[in-house]
Amino acid sequence: MSLAMTENEILLALIQSLKEGKKTKFQEIIDELQPYDMAQQYLNIPNKHRNKFLLYLSIEQLTDLMQQLVKDDQLEVLQKLGIEKSTKVLDLMENDDLASLLSELEPEKIEELLSEMKKEESEIVQNLMNYPPETAGRIMNNRYVWIPQHFTIREAVDKLKHFAELAEYLNYLYVIDEQKKLVGVVSYRDLLLADLQDKIEEIMYSRVVMADVYTDQEEVAKLITRYDFVSLPVVEEDHRLVGVITVDDIIDVVIQEANEDIEKLSASGKSIDFNTKPLVAAYRRLPWLILLLFIGLISGGIISSFEETLEAVVALAFFMPLIAGMTGNTGTQSLAVVVRGLVSEDLNIKQVVKLVFRELWVGIIIGITCGILISIIAFVWRGNFTLGLVVGSSLLITLIIGTLAGTIIPLILYKLKVDPAVASGPLITTINDILSLLIYFGIATAFIVRLM
Amino acid sequence: MSLAMTENEILLALIQSLKEGKKTKFQEIIDELQPYDMAQQYLNIPNKHRNKFLLYLSIEQLTDLMQQLVKDDQLEVLQKLGIEKSTKVLDLMENDDLASLLSELEPEKIEELLSEMKKEESEIVQNLMNYPPETAGRIMNNRYVWIPQHFTIREAVDKLKHFAELAEYLNYLYVIDEQKKLVGVVSYRDLLLADLQDKIEEIMYSRVVMADVYTDQEEVAKLITRYDFVSLPVVEEDHRLVGVITVDDIIDVVIQEANEDIEKLSASGKSIDFNTKPLVAAYRRLPWLILLLFIGLISGGIISSFEETLEAVVALAFFMPLIAGMTGNTGTQSLAVVVRGLVSEDLNIKQVVKLVFRELWVGIIIGITCGILISIIAFVWRGNFTLGLVVGSSLLITLIIGTLAGTIIPLILYKLKVDPAVASGPLITTINDILSLLIYFGIATAFIVRLM
Repeated sequence: MSLAMTENEILLALIQSLKEGKKTKFQEIIDELQPYDMAQQYLNIPNKHRNKFLLYLSIEQLTDLMQQLVKDDQLEVLQKLGIEKSTKVLDLMENDDLASLLSELEPEKIEELLSEMKKEESEIVQNLMNYPPETAGRIMNNRYVWIPQHFTIREAVDKLKHFAELAEYLNYLYVIDEQKKLVGVVSYRDLLLADLQDKIEEIMYSRVVMADVYTDQEEVAKLITRYDFVSLPVVEEDHRLVGVITVDDIIDVVIQEANEDIEKLSASGKSIDFNTKPLVAAYRRLPWLILLLFIGLISGGIISSFEETLEAVVALAFFMPLIAGMTGNTGTQSLAVVVRGLVSEDLNIKQVVKLVFRELWVGIIIGITCGILISIIAFVWRGNFTLGLVVGSSLLITLIIGTLAGTIIPLILYKLKVDPAVASGPLITTINDILSLLIYFGIATAFIVRLM
Repeated sequence: MSLAMTENEILLALIQSLKEGKKTKFQEIIDELQPYDMAQQYLNIPNKHRNKFLLYLSIEQLTDLMQQLVKDDQLEVLQKLGIEKSTKVLDLMENDDLASLLSELEPEKIEELLSEMKKEESEIVQNLMNYPPETAGRIMNNRYVWIPQHFTIREAVDKLKHFAELAEYLNYLYVIDEQKKLVGVVSYRDLLLADLQDKIEEIMYSRVVMADVYTDQEEVAKLITRYDFVSLPVVEEDHRLVGVITVDDIIDVVIQEANEDIEKLSASGKSIDFNTKPLVAAYRRLPWLILLLFIGLISGGIISSFEETLEAVVALAFFMPLIAGMTGNTGTQSLAVVVRGLVSEDLNIKQVVKLVFRELWVGIIIGITCGILISIIAFVWRGNFTLGLVVGSSLLITLIIGTLAGTIIPLILYKLKVDPAVASGPLITTINDILSLLIYFGIATAFIVRLM
């Protein structure tokens, strides 16, 4: 295949080879493609050619293809392949990918597939699926090379050569003792630079950074990011080495966790992407909106309880959206700082206190600036000095409270380990709405005589 | 050092060895620490011991330390080291880290440091700093191994051994021709499995995925994530290999870009973390808040232009926060879907149309559901059928418009390549506020007679 061929030219060449039944030509093209690109081509090819596309691929290529597809497409491929070929592909798939695919299926279907697979493979996958979602145990894989500590460098290199095909990365060899406990790590670089007669235990690094099977995937991401590792060993409670987590899976975790933070901040509902169907997307977004509608009614109730004040000075309504909106905004700003800060920092009580005081100061500075500004504007606009004072002092107080609410509420929820989705941006906004209306109308009512 | 030692015990042991001037004991402890942990210990150690801490470290260890610190601490270390030792450390630092450190300094200081460095090193760094921020050229480093295509496997392995100390990862060797143009890539695994007499060009993979020096770092992150690479070669326009980008830098990019998206959605201001000083944080957040304050005044202006309607039916004010808030929320939800979708998908016109229609449908479904609900509630609460109808139909229309605004505005800004911070969540919220007030009071004024 020519290097200069574009995606579209490759697609046409593939379709032609499929139409003419030329398997060799088809293989020549596929051979030069990265798994991701092969999967893109499969998805772009018209449906009527897909069966033949799959037929022409080797089991290894089918495995590569599967690992690049999303769940729905994976299931379609399995269906087209039939049970016999499917199980061969599943045998070869990385265990973490496989566990994640199977976790979406009905129990009967899982059983059917697992029963046809090689016994040792299916047991490994079933073990993986026993760990809770989003833990190290769930995302680890078994494509690593381990060596006993008494090996020489020569023995280690031989074993490495033997398993090169199987291992995902060759950067580190993990060293274990007789009980399969993890006792050290040797980088491939160390192997290259050492004498062939040296013993592994002499050159290994024994203060190994590792994760427990139950470690949260977000913790694992923190470790890998900090230490710039390409993989991290995972151990059971008794320090037995049971898997590794590789950096490519961690990038997916980082993206997933960022998306969760954004769902949290925008209450946009779980996992809506460009391909979600309208009904599904609406269904996922509605619960939040309906909840917020009822909370919004509380605002209405508060205003209605100040009906007399409002009837007396209708001009108060003009500043309502501004005060509520600003309070909501400053709360969201604080919330974003807290939520993102938690991604890279571990919190101790000293830091929490420091953070809350920092945000208090920020609230005071912001409150004074905006309060003075709006006082002057309100006074100039409506020609009423008291109105300016009421609006300005309300904004001062609500901005301070809004900033603190946006900081403290998510910290409390984090401490209580409450589902963080509860601390969503719109919720903070709505709470701040209610607080700001109470303060604003409260102050206004106190000064009602001078306002009229 | 005992494996069981905790962070605190290590800290105490380090301080003791510094106090007693026992360099060997100090080195024994440091030797077993990962760079990240060494940096943490440096930061935890009382200031009066820091000079000695640095004195006891080798140039290589100082380099490791520097690469784990944030800018302010890096500058402190350079100051303590003095110019001679500093330049030795800078010589050894990874070029991308160095460029990022220097870009924060004043021009005179940069010149002073660069002039003392080895000529070839300082030239490389100066070249890096010529690329625009957030491009591949800026984050690439030169710690990779390249081989000419006519090499045999044996020659390649020899060269690799020679450069093992220098290269960051050994997973891939990049193959170049006589003009230093990138023509292929060989994985370390391929080397292990090939015969020593084979030629590199026979076993190399020639459809290399690469980035141009000017490729946006977000694009680079997409490539590495898609293909599960641990490094990606970077070429000049003429295909000359000039650097590689490694996966650990890409994780930082992914986190940085997610933070930027969140800043966008919450207008929380650039780079505020747990350690930002109150004045700085307030200064970074204020511009947005003041802008939003003035936009909020527009809402006030709109309400004041409907003063008569509001005076006639004060109850209209009760539903104001609810309608404005709900419209803001649905807009933020759509915005979040678009902003995050752009992280992993490239947009073509077909997808944009599909997305806009999807969100239109979502808006209609959400609008009808919430509209009917609030109509009933408003009717029951205030006993006024027309009021229910006005509030319900307003909410229906504003939710549809809000959803579309949250989708279309960021897409247009993306297309126009406008600084995406403009499409921030609070801005969308505020625009939706204004639209919703116009629609609500417009409809209410039309039905004013029946409302009274």
